[in-house]
Amino acid sequence: MEGHSVLVDLFVLFAAAKVAGELFEHFGQPAVVGELLAGILVGPFALGLVGAGEGEVLEVVAELGVIILLFTVGLETSIDDLRAVGRPALIVGFLGVVLPFAAGAGLMFGLGYDSTDALFVSAAIVATSVGVTARVLRDLGAVQTKFARVVLGAAVVDDILAILVLAFVAGSAEGGISTVGIVVLLLEVAAFLALVLVFGPRATRRLSSVVRIPGVPESPFLVAVLLTLGLAALSEVIGLAAIIGAFFAGLIFEFRREEVVTQIEPVYEFLVPFFFAITGSRLDPNVFTDPTVLGLASVVTVIAIVAKGAGGYFGALELGRLPALAVGVGMVPRGEVGLIVASLGLGLGLDAQLFGVVIAMTVVTTLVTPPLLTPLVRRIVPDAEERPPEEGHFRSI
Amino acid sequence: MEGHSVLVDLFVLFAAAKVAGELFEHFGQPAVVGELLAGILVGPFALGLVGAGEGEVLEVVAELGVIILLFTVGLETSIDDLRAVGRPALIVGFLGVVLPFAAGAGLMFGLGYDSTDALFVSAAIVATSVGVTARVLRDLGAVQTKFARVVLGAAVVDDILAILVLAFVAGSAEGGISTVGIVVLLLEVAAFLALVLVFGPRATRRLSSVVRIPGVPESPFLVAVLLTLGLAALSEVIGLAAIIGAFFAGLIFEFRREEVVTQIEPVYEFLVPFFFAITGSRLDPNVFTDPTVLGLASVVTVIAIVAKGAGGYFGALELGRLPALAVGVGMVPRGEVGLIVASLGLGLGLDAQLFGVVIAMTVVTTLVTPPLLTPLVRRIVPDAEERPPEEGHFRSI
Repeated sequence: MEGHSVLVDLFVLFAAAKVAGELFEHFGQPAVVGELLAGILVGPFALGLVGAGEGEVLEVVAELGVIILLFTVGLETSIDDLRAVGRPALIVGFLGVVLPFAAGAGLMFGLGYDSTDALFVSAAIVATSVGVTARVLRDLGAVQTKFARVVLGAAVVDDILAILVLAFVAGSAEGGISTVGIVVLLLEVAAFLALVLVFGPRATRRLSSVVRIPGVPESPFLVAVLLTLGLAALSEVIGLAAIIGAFFAGLIFEFRREEVVTQIEPVYEFLVPFFFAITGSRLDPNVFTDPTVLGLASVVTVIAIVAKGAGGYFGALELGRLPALAVGVGMVPRGEVGLIVASLGLGLGLDAQLFGVVIAMTVVTTLVTPPLLTPLVRRIVPDAEERPPEEGHFRSI
Repeated sequence: MEGHSVLVDLFVLFAAAKVAGELFEHFGQPAVVGELLAGILVGPFALGLVGAGEGEVLEVVAELGVIILLFTVGLETSIDDLRAVGRPALIVGFLGVVLPFAAGAGLMFGLGYDSTDALFVSAAIVATSVGVTARVLRDLGAVQTKFARVVLGAAVVDDILAILVLAFVAGSAEGGISTVGIVVLLLEVAAFLALVLVFGPRATRRLSSVVRIPGVPESPFLVAVLLTLGLAALSEVIGLAAIIGAFFAGLIFEFRREEVVTQIEPVYEFLVPFFFAITGSRLDPNVFTDPTVLGLASVVTVIAIVAKGAGGYFGALELGRLPALAVGVGMVPRGEVGLIVASLGLGLGLDAQLFGVVIAMTVVTTLVTPPLLTPLVRRIVPDAEERPPEEGHFRSI
């Protein structure tokens, strides 16, 4: 009865994403690139088939998609595996925050921007959003490799450091850094990690018997959904990215894991493509028609890629050069945290064109990752495409 | 980084819905009542844990949920079964539109409302929204009974007639009924039905080979999602409810149906509870503190229940009294179409309090259906609770 319908948007996004994704897969490329490009194509700035003024509504579907993605990747990772790569993951996470922030601040101050603009752009290019990397690793069957674990562990470290940077930048823009605020934040993050990693695995085994009501059949999948939504919401509330909570949910989930691994697949197939198509639809190619904006966006994006890549490469060099390069590339994509930082900055006086620059940087870093990462992963894991046929079905996702 | 998060809303809604749902199930009641009440409880008008100002964003999650529900029910129904109950379904659908519209118009004109108010309220109480009934039938394992098929078939007829009523009312409120408009509408609906019912089943079998790209594994689930989103969007575009399209998608889906029946279950378990919890959260109990509004809401709701129930009962009397009563009760719930009509009316001058009355009527008709329908279904299908154990797991959904 209404002219425009969000269901039409969802159908167009899903159909375009799947057609493009399968075509890319047919030509040996990760489906995710096709999904991103399909999103750009049907999005409000190109064909305009979807998304005009529906941003916030589509956002929640995208968010459910990326949460399911990171939960699934968490399910395929174990805590012990992550611990085993603790040292390189810490170094990669640390360098991956310090180098981009320093490079961004150097650039922005060098170009003469005021401190609000300079600090917010620097903070926005800090946080890796590991969604697209996780997806490429999963498409290629490489989640269980050592360098993949370094990327996943480093993403957690990276995100924790990034929120400290943000607290620092937001505090200084508002006229004073609150030491109490930063200490509270640190305590929250520490409590979250302790809660999840120390009590998590035992809790998920017991949760089933606690929430179990006599006469009602047990459902491990129900426990998994509750845990995923709960930790995603909790980590967002304390200031971490929701996907970090979702990743932890998968990491610690131990209650009839095999069943849940099977049951999550259709949910993944349904929701995950929306995240990438909707992310793609956010890129406004018109940004690149204004030479000043284009120039700044290009420089910021190159800085964001090189500084983050260098942090990953040098931090992971103990794995060997090729895996270290894969780690560096895997850390490149930025995502929702950068956009949140930029939105926050907008409220505190960030220049509107710089907001466009940050969005462009986010989408471009996401777009360049799969084509750069794929050949590296294939060289590291030569049998990457030979997963068992029964799993093969879901590789097309 | 933001104070309020839609993920927190989703977690609270899901957790509350599941806890209440399982408790109700433990006491032999349909889980859906628990989910609706949980939604009221945590909603913006009671505890206020969720939903303040997030309406539109939560709406899309609710809509995905109810679409998956009706697709699943469609999967469990066959076109031949529906054809076999064609006559009673037509009569139930027809009486279920004419009687509530006449009763509503009689009441509103009798109370002295002007014609815009009277016609919009009458039109808003016309359209059955079969979601909650479908859910109760599914919870009790009664989707394949004859009276269930009458309800499902009548819901389709009902929805088609309801949009004609709406076109008529909207036309007269805008100052003239467009005969051309109504003819175009009729042609669209006829084309949709012909397309779906005549070519649909063959098309879904072939769609797989058409969309299949060499080297990429077939995915019947992917075809199912495309079909469901596509028909839901299409039916909404021509003015039918999206759930009618989703129901047709399930009805005609024939490509490796068994696999899809298994794969849809986790998606159902994840998304469907949101629809009911979010629907519940819309009820503002404060409506009932103003005696005038309370009085009018009560009368409109009683009229809505009695007139619709009578239409269903008399229309289905050839099935016997008890099944006819179940059909009458099953047709009672109103939903999104009523709300759409009322929103449209608001734009054309409908009194704002009457909008509240329509919302209250919608939620109350949805709430009273499960407790009235459950004992009837149990008397008609005495073994309703003895579905095979391997299916039993998902009954708790």
